[in-house]
Amino acid sequence: MAKPRGRNMPQPLSTNNQPTLEDQFDGPKRRAYDEDCGFVIEENFQRFNACNDVFSRVQWDEGVRSEKGINWFKSMFTHGLGVRNTEGYRAKDFALRNAAWVGSNLLIERNLANGRHDGFLDDLTGYAPPAPVKIEIEDPAEMAAELKQVARIFGADLIGITSTDLRWHYNRRFSAKSRSEKENADCSELPNCIVIGTEMPGKVIQTFPSALAGTAAGFGYSKDGLALMSIAQFIRNMGYRAIASLNDTAQCIPYAIQAGLGEYGRHGLVITKQYGPRLRFGKIFTDMPLAHDQPVKFGVKEFCDICRRCADACPPKAIPHGEPDGALHNQSNFVGIKKWNVDGEKCFKFWANQGTECGICIRVCPYNKLPETKLGKMYFRNWKWLAGTRLRRLALWLDIKLRFGERFKPDWWWKNRPGW
Amino acid sequence: MAKPRGRNMPQPLSTNNQPTLEDQFDGPKRRAYDEDCGFVIEENFQRFNACNDVFSRVQWDEGVRSEKGINWFKSMFTHGLGVRNTEGYRAKDFALRNAAWVGSNLLIERNLANGRHDGFLDDLTGYAPPAPVKIEIEDPAEMAAELKQVARIFGADLIGITSTDLRWHYNRRFSAKSRSEKENADCSELPNCIVIGTEMPGKVIQTFPSALAGTAAGFGYSKDGLALMSIAQFIRNMGYRAIASLNDTAQCIPYAIQAGLGEYGRHGLVITKQYGPRLRFGKIFTDMPLAHDQPVKFGVKEFCDICRRCADACPPKAIPHGEPDGALHNQSNFVGIKKWNVDGEKCFKFWANQGTECGICIRVCPYNKLPETKLGKMYFRNWKWLAGTRLRRLALWLDIKLRFGERFKPDWWWKNRPGW
Repeated sequence: MAKPRGRNMPQPLSTNNQPTLEDQFDGPKRRAYDEDCGFVIEENFQRFNACNDVFSRVQWDEGVRSEKGINWFKSMFTHGLGVRNTEGYRAKDFALRNAAWVGSNLLIERNLANGRHDGFLDDLTGYAPPAPVKIEIEDPAEMAAELKQVARIFGADLIGITSTDLRWHYNRRFSAKSRSEKENADCSELPNCIVIGTEMPGKVIQTFPSALAGTAAGFGYSKDGLALMSIAQFIRNMGYRAIASLNDTAQCIPYAIQAGLGEYGRHGLVITKQYGPRLRFGKIFTDMPLAHDQPVKFGVKEFCDICRRCADACPPKAIPHGEPDGALHNQSNFVGIKKWNVDGEKCFKFWANQGTECGICIRVCPYNKLPETKLGKMYFRNWKWLAGTRLRRLALWLDIKLRFGERFKPDWWWKNRPGW
Repeated sequence: MAKPRGRNMPQPLSTNNQPTLEDQFDGPKRRAYDEDCGFVIEENFQRFNACNDVFSRVQWDEGVRSEKGINWFKSMFTHGLGVRNTEGYRAKDFALRNAAWVGSNLLIERNLANGRHDGFLDDLTGYAPPAPVKIEIEDPAEMAAELKQVARIFGADLIGITSTDLRWHYNRRFSAKSRSEKENADCSELPNCIVIGTEMPGKVIQTFPSALAGTAAGFGYSKDGLALMSIAQFIRNMGYRAIASLNDTAQCIPYAIQAGLGEYGRHGLVITKQYGPRLRFGKIFTDMPLAHDQPVKFGVKEFCDICRRCADACPPKAIPHGEPDGALHNQSNFVGIKKWNVDGEKCFKFWANQGTECGICIRVCPYNKLPETKLGKMYFRNWKWLAGTRLRRLALWLDIKLRFGERFKPDWWWKNRPGW
């Protein structure tokens, strides 16, 4: 693993001085459900230091930091920055993309003065503390079913529940204030993890790459933040503890897989049955007694084995074409899991060059369909079935032949052309 | 009109000392579109003083103020208050209802220290000021179409655009800090009004009266607040001014009618084609050039003339059985419009006695259907057509015979029984 190349990082990162495996997380390195999840954990497994996340590295690592990268951040708040006379990058596209972040920004700004960056570096500060008296829960299975109703009414499209697994928690997190690492939130006494997935608006996703499409990410975070804040407060109102989290605290991807929301895809995203990879995830750690869900398999691994649409379409070639080998491109990769690893540096460099988010891998993924018409719904259902059989090559051929995944013109989205 | 009975109101309310009609709003008393909207404006028309809103009166008017009324407010923040061992009023129902308000509370609390109560007494303080340069808009019709796309992606289910009409703006507003009246937001230079409607979750609505059903109101405000903040910021990012508003600043109902979202119903709510009365409304005043929508008619007035389901079902008999006569029950009524007037005092007293919100009038309204099944969708479409014809009495008879509008058991909602 590459050494941290940061020059303005006040404290050295602890990546090269990891404690022993057993020190890093409570419990065994491998869990009973790892096989069902498709997790292949290796001897050199290490918990991830969130300072090595490429978005944190832009703050401290000269190797990633660039004027364009910084401008990408700035363009969120600076009128006109990044605007050019090209479909999808016009003033209105940026106006929309930046407005989409308002909900998320309001959550971040609640605690910015205290050196926190809620939802991205730090967990979402709760609205109010737990009720002093716990409401007794007789049946964790019934409570889990009720909690799913709660999550749905607050905007979650998918909900799964699993056990808290400290392997997926960052061993340290990044402080934007001190630009150094700090303690992560302590979830060790919160045994259950609720994972929610919210669908991102499909039509704008089809316009990736564009500033317009960045709206899907921004409003996804805003909507997720509202859902997580509300669900967590329900739990607290019932007298239990809850730590709600967007990108902070722990990795969403393994948790979403564990909670049965989907399978791991070549592009490093979770592919769900319902929405393919077109989702954002959030999670809540709690001591509320809740029954757990089981991981699901519907042939994604086998399909991704033969499909390279995302890898082929990725402009900076950040997605691997080969086997899931856990190849380490740089320190932004998670060490010790045999999986398809995306090169975060290449990915972010493309974002910085474009001046906006990219999600071409979501757009071209054959599991990303917009089942908005009856025909589309029926096609998607049957296609998924086919992709899960030995005829998966036929499914892939069909998908390409029917020109799914092609980019929609951003100006068409603005005109709300029918048939979308 | 009754005199204000408040004893602890520091300044006298101006209701008895109204300026002349022409002083109260810019422009003529009647507008060209009044007839299309079904507005019958009378000589004694007066702009409404928001201090006379029943929710404000609880703060200052001893005639409305009661321990139960205050407890209704307090129960939003006090664990256990109002909880009883009855379906729909259990600890979990209140836990959910109160969590639903988190998003809305976060908006309120942004400016509470400055004596503001955003979204309820004061307009929603904007996230960031307008961009210094206005993006030129050549075609207001095209911009209106684009703005509707923006509103939809931010969660609005219905969107209409109309002209700002100061008749619907409060002449004064209530300050929760000083418990006296203060200046309302100045929208006189913002000629266009965007009205958004967001559907409230239908299944919980069917459990009214219950604390559980209050979730629909709370999360409705939270979701609306996020949509309004985001749309308004889009407008500002385009270089234009925007004042976003929930219950504050002006009345939503006449604006929603003017903007073509629906017709006025006997229960004092707007009945829309798509969701009946099961919506929350918000609005944004702006100087962005936008084409306007036209009012719609689909037979609601004629149907409400023969239907009294809401009036019959209202426990405190707050909804009139007779003709739309603009009868003034008390100072919480809007003076000088010939319409069905609800008795806000009776309505709120029932809320206070129940300890939660009530929306039985929404539940029993024949236009409130849950078209979640194919059959339901088809039935609702055909029923609406029938209700708009001379066979409306048959439509009403059918609705009652088929037992629509009956209360669902709150515990059934928690169990997510199929077929809902």
